[in-house]
Amino acid sequence: MSILVVGSVALDTVETPFGRVEEALGGSAVYFSLAARLYAPVRLVAVVGEDFPAEHVALLHQHGVDVAGLERAAGPTFRWSGRYDFDLNSAETLDTQLNVFASFHPKMPPAYGDSEFLFMANIDPDLQREVLQQVPDTKLRALDSLKFWITIKPELLASAMSLVDIVLMNEAEARQFAGTHSLLRAARRILELGPRALIVKKGEYGAVLFSEYGYFVAPAYPLEDVRDPTGAGDSFAGGFLGFLARAGEITPRTLKQAIIHGSVVASFTVEDFSVERLRRVSWDEVRQRYEEFHHFTAFDAIV
Amino acid sequence: MSILVVGSVALDTVETPFGRVEEALGGSAVYFSLAARLYAPVRLVAVVGEDFPAEHVALLHQHGVDVAGLERAAGPTFRWSGRYDFDLNSAETLDTQLNVFASFHPKMPPAYGDSEFLFMANIDPDLQREVLQQVPDTKLRALDSLKFWITIKPELLASAMSLVDIVLMNEAEARQFAGTHSLLRAARRILELGPRALIVKKGEYGAVLFSEYGYFVAPAYPLEDVRDPTGAGDSFAGGFLGFLARAGEITPRTLKQAIIHGSVVASFTVEDFSVERLRRVSWDEVRQRYEEFHHFTAFDAIV
Repeated sequence: MSILVVGSVALDTVETPFGRVEEALGGSAVYFSLAARLYAPVRLVAVVGEDFPAEHVALLHQHGVDVAGLERAAGPTFRWSGRYDFDLNSAETLDTQLNVFASFHPKMPPAYGDSEFLFMANIDPDLQREVLQQVPDTKLRALDSLKFWITIKPELLASAMSLVDIVLMNEAEARQFAGTHSLLRAARRILELGPRALIVKKGEYGAVLFSEYGYFVAPAYPLEDVRDPTGAGDSFAGGFLGFLARAGEITPRTLKQAIIHGSVVASFTVEDFSVERLRRVSWDEVRQRYEEFHHFTAFDAIV
Repeated sequence: MSILVVGSVALDTVETPFGRVEEALGGSAVYFSLAARLYAPVRLVAVVGEDFPAEHVALLHQHGVDVAGLERAAGPTFRWSGRYDFDLNSAETLDTQLNVFASFHPKMPPAYGDSEFLFMANIDPDLQREVLQQVPDTKLRALDSLKFWITIKPELLASAMSLVDIVLMNEAEARQFAGTHSLLRAARRILELGPRALIVKKGEYGAVLFSEYGYFVAPAYPLEDVRDPTGAGDSFAGGFLGFLARAGEITPRTLKQAIIHGSVVASFTVEDFSVERLRRVSWDEVRQRYEEFHHFTAFDAIV
């Protein structure tokens, strides 16, 4: 099944204790696409400016990502600059220049109309609703959000959530949105809005799935060296939805496997800056880490 | 197999967003004992002052804890006072009065000489060495530590670690002790000192086992309401070593099960203040949560 992703394509300047990159390929739709392409055909909708390097577009295309929906607008590309301290769990944003992203309105190429899965990255909830109206026939819809939208557009975000099947958020966002420190209670409030499942991403601590089938928790894949956590959440979403699209059905079993795939793919992303590691990941590497993951976490069911 | 625990018995004053207790029963040896007694006979070595309520001693005794090694010294009992914010992961210590604990030197009753398992809670590494000299014939030795000792006696602590089979620490302590943010690297440095296994406790994020058999990671049991996290780490240690004492053998399988038991028992402790919940836990409740735990974390081994 094909996956349509709507999100950002950016030029990121990132500094961590382990290095620095300037104006490197980034953005939620990029990380998602390069993760999900390991599992299923991916179609991208985003906007870049006149200054966006052609080599980045070529990279996406070479990795099987359909870039027919990548609009090139007048003006400079969206730029984000951030810094991570030794505690790599959260970024300090140094600068955000929305540029062409500020006036972005997603436009679906007609050929995207038959997309079966839809992922809306952490864009404005108003844009998420515009997207939903343009592709009403998707089989599975998922969205992510971020603190900024939770703070300034909580009602619109709640409304968008009510229209999707799966919500992905990080831990602090879920707590903020639901107004409670208890993650279980926050999850219940979010599921009451309508989605069938909520994935709470916990960075280096893994992820939790709350769904109509119950609860599932998975740690992150253990890594000796994390160089740059940028894109981990979107890569997770790409592995997660990518696996579900490949499996072709949403069951308790595939949802759990999808969480592990999300963690596995994200573990590659953070091993290097930008998409340097993610772009080189092979299916064999994914399979190997998945099997290691099982080995690291399985224990005897008998007390 | 019987377990000997050496640690603190305290009167705790604790405030969390969900309530407050004054001079309640606490201390590492108390939490450990009340957790481990679910699995195996427990023998306690600690000191209290003249003011220590007889009812607390009676409670330990009624729960099958051997208190022959509970010394009553002249002076007041060790007191700790702390506060937790909504983020219940770390306590702010408001006051520590060591009192009789300041001049404590563990003395083993002769009848404790045949103890098979030994747990030394986060006491002075000098005392941990005194204990090891007094009970040289234990089959399995484990120790915990804390930031204070890592800061002021790192060499002595390293020396004590080299004499035990299992080291338990929390995440920040392991990183501090090893001088690296990478938990995998910290674990390698600690295991190089000699212990067969390192358990890194991560609070609400679970625990990780590093051992000669490899790596195992478990999340924490999910709880809707945590009222007071005090004693979670020592309860974890009690469930962990208690299960191993009950199983009677240290294998890859039992080590993993023991981690889950540690998490399960700790999940009861934090549901109420002091030992209110822990003292009432039954084996049936433990078994039920263990089975739920498996259900919450198991996923298909096939990619």
